[in-house]
Amino acid sequence: MPSLHDNAPSTTRIRFARVEADRYDTHITRNLSSMRGQFVDEQAYRRLLAAGDALLYEVFEFKRPEVPGELLSGISVVHPGRVGDEYYMTKGHFHQVLETAEVYYCLSGRGMMVMETPEGEWSVKALEPGGILYVPPRWAHRSVNVGASEDLVTLFVYPAHAGHDYGTIERKGFRKLVVDRGNGPEVVDNPRWVS
Amino acid sequence: MPSLHDNAPSTTRIRFARVEADRYDTHITRNLSSMRGQFVDEQAYRRLLAAGDALLYEVFEFKRPEVPGELLSGISVVHPGRVGDEYYMTKGHFHQVLETAEVYYCLSGRGMMVMETPEGEWSVKALEPGGILYVPPRWAHRSVNVGASEDLVTLFVYPAHAGHDYGTIERKGFRKLVVDRGNGPEVVDNPRWVS
Repeated sequence: MPSLHDNAPSTTRIRFARVEADRYDTHITRNLSSMRGQFVDEQAYRRLLAAGDALLYEVFEFKRPEVPGELLSGISVVHPGRVGDEYYMTKGHFHQVLETAEVYYCLSGRGMMVMETPEGEWSVKALEPGGILYVPPRWAHRSVNVGASEDLVTLFVYPAHAGHDYGTIERKGFRKLVVDRGNGPEVVDNPRWVS
Repeated sequence: MPSLHDNAPSTTRIRFARVEADRYDTHITRNLSSMRGQFVDEQAYRRLLAAGDALLYEVFEFKRPEVPGELLSGISVVHPGRVGDEYYMTKGHFHQVLETAEVYYCLSGRGMMVMETPEGEWSVKALEPGGILYVPPRWAHRSVNVGASEDLVTLFVYPAHAGHDYGTIERKGFRKLVVDRGNGPEVVDNPRWVS
């Protein structure tokens, strides 16, 4: 992928085993400690954290100028695991420019995208290899890995001027959670959701 | 994928054998007859056309409102074949809003993306499964299938307000061609390129 100031076309290859992108600009890692307050079961969270600051997900980003017309893309890898009965997941966010969409293409693993609008609509969609998910403008989104042992790997593309609003979700959470209470993935109300 | 007026998130699955998208809005097919003047070897073109109007490529599109912030995406399938020594290819185009990019993810097959800017730069990049290609703003682009017998299948995403300018390429062609003169794919000057 071209770097920020290189304007010639270029290619990137993604290989799996563990994901290796042969060329990327930034590699973001999110550990358990950076997700404080995001999982409902605080006790399970503290217990897990005491045992070690597990890596929950990683994002390999291709940088471009953050202006209209450009696109930001990258690979998201959510590792398998749970905090209490809640699956490992990304922080989730609205776009700062709310009227911007995002396309996800699921490369491997098994997941769910939890989404909601400021107006109160919600939606949870499956992510499976070969699946294309369109997140329309206005929808906050969070990837959840519901697989038992496999990474959830997605390619994402969104308008480069979209920006990220993480704060709203940090304060309010999503209306819906994806949990495993012994019968596999289940969508339930978030008891701690703040209206 | 959501239709034009449906604003809820939705998913699409793509399967291969021949490509089948389980949900799409438009299916564009381009036959040999719609590519008149685009291949250099006019004699080979007429001979081939006389034998039948072969299907060169297909596009499965997911429609969205064509406004900034939305994304258009779909699957492009270029079939294998040649007109003279030139491989089957798409028409190729600039975006009407020149300052808009496009992301391609190669799903299967083996191809090349031929690109150029109005300022005279050119670039030809390989498309192979797992490869992500970033076409920056200002670059016209054409997919070429250089495989012997397999479809070239790519997922594409671009800003929904980009629009298409096919006319410039129809008149001038691309500066470079991808041909097989007995030694596999080769990038050569277009003898009929119009400055």
